[in-house]
Amino acid sequence: MSDDAPVTAAVIVIGNEILSGRTQDTNLKFLGERLHALGIRLMEARVVRDTETAIVEAVNACRAAYDYVFTTGGIGPTHDDITARCVAKAFGVPVERNAEAERRLLAQYDPKDVNEARLSMADMPVGASLIDNPVSVAPGFRIANVFVMAGVPAIARAMFEGLAHELAGGAPVSSRTIASELAEGALAEGLGALQERYPTLEIGSYPYFRLGRFGVSVVLRGTEEEMLDKAADALRDLIRGLGAEPIEQETD
Amino acid sequence: MSDDAPVTAAVIVIGNEILSGRTQDTNLKFLGERLHALGIRLMEARVVRDTETAIVEAVNACRAAYDYVFTTGGIGPTHDDITARCVAKAFGVPVERNAEAERRLLAQYDPKDVNEARLSMADMPVGASLIDNPVSVAPGFRIANVFVMAGVPAIARAMFEGLAHELAGGAPVSSRTIASELAEGALAEGLGALQERYPTLEIGSYPYFRLGRFGVSVVLRGTEEEMLDKAADALRDLIRGLGAEPIEQETD
Repeated sequence: MSDDAPVTAAVIVIGNEILSGRTQDTNLKFLGERLHALGIRLMEARVVRDTETAIVEAVNACRAAYDYVFTTGGIGPTHDDITARCVAKAFGVPVERNAEAERRLLAQYDPKDVNEARLSMADMPVGASLIDNPVSVAPGFRIANVFVMAGVPAIARAMFEGLAHELAGGAPVSSRTIASELAEGALAEGLGALQERYPTLEIGSYPYFRLGRFGVSVVLRGTEEEMLDKAADALRDLIRGLGAEPIEQETD
Repeated sequence: MSDDAPVTAAVIVIGNEILSGRTQDTNLKFLGERLHALGIRLMEARVVRDTETAIVEAVNACRAAYDYVFTTGGIGPTHDDITARCVAKAFGVPVERNAEAERRLLAQYDPKDVNEARLSMADMPVGASLIDNPVSVAPGFRIANVFVMAGVPAIARAMFEGLAHELAGGAPVSSRTIASELAEGALAEGLGALQERYPTLEIGSYPYFRLGRFGVSVVLRGTEEEMLDKAADALRDLIRGLGAEPIEQETD
């Protein structure tokens, strides 16, 4: 909304354990925050099962629609780690053992612990370049606009920080967050008018219940600092006009 | 994998605040667990922005592909709460003010607090039936196989528990979870063989790092208790054969 041609991205979270509720995903929030800080707009996320059809479809839909695609999960050594061959299939290229990835894995393991399952982590689509893994060595990879990362959060984060310099960011988006103990329904009309007055800002309202009190946080986002300040002032006036106090919150 | 015709579902999480990283979604994990317990297989989840195109596309893709679709978010009173009219658009039906929903809202508010924004929460697709909201009154709704719920986790949970009796579950899926302090790469070959021996089970392996120790949890899922017990025994033997101790974990 706030850019003419924002740089866009999608996240694909791969893994049955997220869909069965066994594991709470935290990679999406991390990537959302980091991409936002880089001025890249995360347009959607998909959580898919560990099946070839699901992964190939999601990768192909997202890589066609967005500037960047980030996947997490499914790059370990076991039978359910099928991300690399699915991404290869999505691109219509064969899988090959990446010599540099294999070298890193061989350097990492005691020779008696080297086995085919572990070395299979070096199998990647032809044309892939490595994403470093400073935590547990086995690398991720990039092919075209798709970045394939581990699912373990500590590893996903380390991989992302290592690849972030490769991303072309858009105009960084700033925000102002102002809360109040008003009900959302009391604020709604005024907020709607504020959005009409500042159509290039993205105005979101998020009700909360904390420490026994209800309230609503309003987040203003945009690329122009001066416009954000003006809209934030108008929002403070709106809140005061409804008999409440604006509560300034940390901008995320 | 374990049923011939499992009952399937998708979750659509609606809201810019999830994609910007501002808010950690927890509804997906909750719904994944509850659907799993009801024998319904959650096949995918999508997180989409508060835009008509994104919501309509996701709803139409998922309602055609799966038995049930659950959406969370975007049903409040503010300008960015557009889920109801987008779901109506997806179904090609008009929006109308639901008389029973309006009655509940009017009963809830002090007359001086009634305004058009609040009453707009009673606007729903023609043909929708209400989903009760025991937390904050404003109801969700069901239209055909799509269940539209609030985003606030406490409300989403209460709404789901109220509608769960309407869902036709499949065969309940049981699981066994056995961990060990082996590396995933040491287990991989044996696990692959176990999966081949029990093709109707779903075998997932999830490395962890907790309390300074690395390990891997293996989850076996299926609908046949006896087969699960046999496969779990074989897994314990595999772990012992690799020189480690099986660690029994709570089944989720």
